[in-house]
Amino acid sequence: MILHEDPFSGNCYKIRLTAALVGQPIERRFYDITKGETRTEAFLSQVNANGRIPVLQMGDRFLPESNAACWYLAHGSSLIPSDRFDQADMLRWMFFEQYNHEPNVATLRFWLGKLGEDALSETQRAQLPAKRAAGEAALRLMDDHLARQDWFVGGDITLADIALYAYTHVCEPGGFALADYPHIQAWIARVAAQPAYVPMD
Amino acid sequence: MILHEDPFSGNCYKIRLTAALVGQPIERRFYDITKGETRTEAFLSQVNANGRIPVLQMGDRFLPESNAACWYLAHGSSLIPSDRFDQADMLRWMFFEQYNHEPNVATLRFWLGKLGEDALSETQRAQLPAKRAAGEAALRLMDDHLARQDWFVGGDITLADIALYAYTHVCEPGGFALADYPHIQAWIARVAAQPAYVPMD
Repeated sequence: MILHEDPFSGNCYKIRLTAALVGQPIERRFYDITKGETRTEAFLSQVNANGRIPVLQMGDRFLPESNAACWYLAHGSSLIPSDRFDQADMLRWMFFEQYNHEPNVATLRFWLGKLGEDALSETQRAQLPAKRAAGEAALRLMDDHLARQDWFVGGDITLADIALYAYTHVCEPGGFALADYPHIQAWIARVAAQPAYVPMD
Repeated sequence: MILHEDPFSGNCYKIRLTAALVGQPIERRFYDITKGETRTEAFLSQVNANGRIPVLQMGDRFLPESNAACWYLAHGSSLIPSDRFDQADMLRWMFFEQYNHEPNVATLRFWLGKLGEDALSETQRAQLPAKRAAGEAALRLMDDHLARQDWFVGGDITLADIALYAYTHVCEPGGFALADYPHIQAWIARVAAQPAYVPMD
């Protein structure tokens, strides 16, 4: 399997972490999104017409969307609960991650931690307060949930934890303070203590 | 089962359509998001701490996130392919829907078709061009995909089609023209021709 990725991306890291936890070796191919390397004619026609990474490649088949790639890799493992409600509830947190968390927590990390505030457009700058509030709300919801249980779904780590961990544990360059969220901090330590854990580059 | 919903919402309609196609009766409870009815203390503490609909209720268990609720309802049906790659590929389109499609196509429908352009804030107005371009790009990607196959994944309707159908077939009040996307138009007719199909209110 080949992972088309940018090591700065938490969405790409999710897939590497899932692969590590299930013991699946993957080959890595690197792209720099700030240089438009995922918008070339070759990338769009061969890897992903949506011009985005990560993409997981299996032979001549390509799977975009980080959480879908994690689902594929975790097939048959304990990272996907078998109970019908728990499985849907795990997906619930993964959709929450892509809708409420990533566009705020990951975007502010990219805008403020990578591009820098001076490089932002007026339209981006105007969105900072809303993205800050929405990011804090997502982290607050997670912290409240983790006050009551060690993992997002059931009694052990699942893809919900991996999906949410990716951008949460590196949220501080985006201006969020993990010290505000003690239950998230304890959960981050639990994820990092997994035997086959691999860190972000 | 009880669906906590707003009939204007495509995310809520997805769940009603999935329930109809699998023959699962559901009771409906209505909320008006423009009146803050999903941000009340009672709603936040009992239904969804994230203050959003839809939420699918089974007894004392609550499942937010439209696509997760569809997954729960479609368990064991042909709406979820059993092949490992196809299942992940279906989820790929559902994550695409929530990340690339809904925040643009559904948001413009809500902003322009429901609130009206005059009611928008300066920050919202500044986002119109980017959301227009991203919405058109999502519809273009769908149209190109549907030029090659009748359904998003495999040879029959799956949750990927239901998830993407919900806001696509009512995109025009948001300023999108379905006439620009002939393959989407043909696919919309195929979805609406399903024997147990129910229309949006």
